[in-house]
Amino acid sequence: MPHLVVQYSANIEPDFDLTALCRQLCDALSALPDFERGGIRVRAVRCEHFAVADDASDNAFADMVLRIAAGRSAEVKKAAGDALFEVASAFFAPRLDAPHFALSLEIREIMPGTSWKKNTIHPRLQAG
Amino acid sequence: MPHLVVQYSANIEPDFDLTALCRQLCDALSALPDFERGGIRVRAVRCEHFAVADDASDNAFADMVLRIAAGRSAEVKKAAGDALFEVASAFFAPRLDAPHFALSLEIREIMPGTSWKKNTIHPRLQAG
Amino acid sequence: MPHLVVQYSANIEPDFDLTALCRQLCDALSALPDFERGGIRVRAVRCEHFAVADDASDNAFADMVLRIAAGRSAEVKKAAGDALFEVASAFFAPRLDAPHFALSLEIREIMPGTSWKKNTIHPRLQAG
Repeated sequence: MPHLVVQYSANIEPDFDLTALCRQLCDALSALPDFERGGIRVRAVRCEHFAVADDASDNAFADMVLRIAAGRSAEVKKAAGDALFEVASAFFAPRLDAPHFALSLEIREIMPGTSWKKNTIHPRLQAG
Repeated sequence: MPHLVVQYSANIEPDFDLTALCRQLCDALSALPDFERGGIRVRAVRCEHFAVADDASDNAFADMVLRIAAGRSAEVKKAAGDALFEVASAFFAPRLDAPHFALSLEIREIMPGTSWKKNTIHPRLQAG
Repeated sequence: MPHLVVQYSANIEPDFDLTALCRQLCDALSALPDFERGGIRVRAVRCEHFAVADDASDNAFADMVLRIAAGRSAEVKKAAGDALFEVASAFFAPRLDAPHFALSLEIREIMPGTSWKKNTIHPRLQAG
């Protein structure tokens, strides 16, 4: 079930391969014992229009929201967040060394009872 | 007030008319007794960069989030989710028959007291 | 920490400068005593595919979601929402005078304990 959405300011696109970031984040999540690979969907959404802080032209951001089924322990959530944030921090290291970047991650729970899903990848991977 | 956002991996775009999907989902919601047509806003957001499960090149997803005013009964929420998911399942049937697709829907409530709105469509439709 | 995301139907793009809107919203937030300028990230996401209400071709929307750290008072949240909604209402005034537009804003809280961040803009602005 995990969904991870990365929103980013368009001005970082020339310097980073966002598809590669999605892949790294997907691998980091599926390396944890608590998330099945078949359910992981990571994507990045480019934000063409943005305004960050004092509007310095180098200002940029990447903001991640992870949505998971409700009910996991605080430890599991912390481990997932730590793992993802470490990957993203390494990926954006050149920006984090300069004074114009904001990186963030939030975990949100999907409420039980108001969620629907069909996944044809799970059976393929489980059979594999 | 209902907002429905569909995020989808860019690799399904050649095979599906996402505007048609938005229209079908909008019609399904407004056919229910609990949602006024004038307040319904459905949209789809293309995700150019993504990583799904084991990274098989055919892997794709469509993920829907419906936001509605808090306070509706569990029955109303279930009916809305069932109706939307049925439409989306029919729309993506060719993908759901193959082992590379994940379809999902979540309903989230908008908290009372921290919501603002102006809608000039309602009066037009109510007068019509 | 404040994140403000504006989703909008693509049909308003020819008539509005969405980057200018982001800048105005960012300025409005940072003019309040409760939000530090260095943490503000506003962006707009274009929705190419959409269906609004009765599908009249002029129908359009702009929908804002503000995410802030949990724990602020109802008064602070109301002041922030009022300020942002006033800016957006003025910006979209020509549309709000016509019977085809829906404008909305929701405030959501980021749960303590499941949030990670690094911000290299704060120290620069605090030193400035």
